[in-house]
Amino acid sequence: MNFQKERSERIAQIEEIIKTYLPPEEGFQKTVLEAMNYSVLAGGKRLRPMLMQETFRLFGGRGGAIEPFMAAIEMIHTYSLVHDDLPAMDDDEYRRGKKTTHAVYGEAMGILAGDGLLNLAFETACKSFPGEDQEMTDAERAAQFARTAKALEILGEKAGVYGMIGGQTADVEAVDKQITPELLDFIFRLKTAALIEASMMIGAVLAGASSEEQELIRQVAEKVGIAFQIRDDVLDVTATTEVLGKPVHSDERNNKPTYVTMNGLEKSVADVDLLSREAMEKLSALDRRNPFLEELLLSLIAREN
Amino acid sequence: MNFQKERSERIAQIEEIIKTYLPPEEGFQKTVLEAMNYSVLAGGKRLRPMLMQETFRLFGGRGGAIEPFMAAIEMIHTYSLVHDDLPAMDDDEYRRGKKTTHAVYGEAMGILAGDGLLNLAFETACKSFPGEDQEMTDAERAAQFARTAKALEILGEKAGVYGMIGGQTADVEAVDKQITPELLDFIFRLKTAALIEASMMIGAVLAGASSEEQELIRQVAEKVGIAFQIRDDVLDVTATTEVLGKPVHSDERNNKPTYVTMNGLEKSVADVDLLSREAMEKLSALDRRNPFLEELLLSLIAREN
Repeated sequence: MNFQKERSERIAQIEEIIKTYLPPEEGFQKTVLEAMNYSVLAGGKRLRPMLMQETFRLFGGRGGAIEPFMAAIEMIHTYSLVHDDLPAMDDDEYRRGKKTTHAVYGEAMGILAGDGLLNLAFETACKSFPGEDQEMTDAERAAQFARTAKALEILGEKAGVYGMIGGQTADVEAVDKQITPELLDFIFRLKTAALIEASMMIGAVLAGASSEEQELIRQVAEKVGIAFQIRDDVLDVTATTEVLGKPVHSDERNNKPTYVTMNGLEKSVADVDLLSREAMEKLSALDRRNPFLEELLLSLIAREN
Repeated sequence: MNFQKERSERIAQIEEIIKTYLPPEEGFQKTVLEAMNYSVLAGGKRLRPMLMQETFRLFGGRGGAIEPFMAAIEMIHTYSLVHDDLPAMDDDEYRRGKKTTHAVYGEAMGILAGDGLLNLAFETACKSFPGEDQEMTDAERAAQFARTAKALEILGEKAGVYGMIGGQTADVEAVDKQITPELLDFIFRLKTAALIEASMMIGAVLAGASSEEQELIRQVAEKVGIAFQIRDDVLDVTATTEVLGKPVHSDERNNKPTYVTMNGLEKSVADVDLLSREAMEKLSALDRRNPFLEELLLSLIAREN
């Protein structure tokens, strides 16, 4: 397997799936629709939908029920960036080398486009419910509804105040402050790991994984998510702007406490390694394998940008 | 029936229901939770949950499945006010005589609290799905899942870019501009009527109303919603700040085109009357009655604040 080539192909496939759920840019509300599409199509690694799809495959999932959720998680990730870039938040003019949404469409449209994407995420996820015309027994129908409902609940919980928004809140308040290791761990688990957990858990749930398997996958995702965020802090110190595609040393400039400032570079790098090994060990406890997923998880943790 | 007394009692009951779905104010993300609760508990007529509950009753609905949706619609209404009040939007420091959310908690928390409430609305609505422990046949189970899923879809659609957010976008862009009657109608239907439609339709759906009944209710709600917004424009011109609880002549000050500036006060008042009569006629075509709902609809249109 040529991992990089396969990954690029899958990104292209995922972008096609996401596009089918984006709104046409027409009507009196055209501006917000343009701003939403601009935000989602500004690039990115499509990591969360990819993790979702590969976990779905790991558990033998088939059919299109996963696709609305793949689009939904990317919409939620995108809205969080749009709102995070606003002047009252991180005040960023560029992301991935492109103007941020509010820098192009104005601050009011930045707010509304973020709201629009968050709302559209739930609208889109609802498209995964079985249609009235799908032929199945009442028991199958009830089971499929229950799985989609469970996936929606996970999406809501991990994106909300006990997930990403909660982490964002603590992160915003941590600027210019001395923080404890417990608080930094909280921020990493909620701000970054929660959406990774949601991605992988929803893949598992929609493929029919057992509760035990769902919990194991959650733990794998949590470790990967925390390692991913520590790696982010490391790259902010060690990478160049060219390789990273965004300004380096931004944490220092914004007076944000990071894993590196609290633990030093050496321990940070070692902890990324430790967490990733723990995650892979957990994953290998399953009696199923998805080699692409394994390579993907390792690549996230070893990434250079 | 003493309508005003009964209405006050129902508002108190609705507030108790909403409170059960609000988050406890604890944890590292405490500030956003406080800001969310402050926003929801800042008062208000609880009109949307009341319309939902009364429409549910109109169609013979029983049990608690409506309650999560009652809280959810009020959370969505509230988040829209919180974001609408932000400096980049309407820039309002007061609402209903109280400081707006960002005026108390800062702009970043205003953004995050709005996001948190929108997200929590969908999380809360998901609590209406039947639990695994509820005893019922597979057919009943599938039917109850389908009704809740339909209600969720309506909530998402009417709150999103083809509903409230779409109307907000057009409204924001209409400032300082000459607009057409078509555009003003679009804004009224999406910005104001859409959530009223969602409220009444969800009440109908969860009570098991037929598709025809759902569509009839949607039309009633649309007319009521538009009349409600025209009345709002009329009050902005004719009321006093004391009675209205917010500054009057704000539309003029913000250079917002209104129904009154476009059609004159006399025609505006007459159109409110016409729309309300049409709505009541439609409603009376049903073979069911809910006298409290009828009085409530009339009171909205004749309201002084």
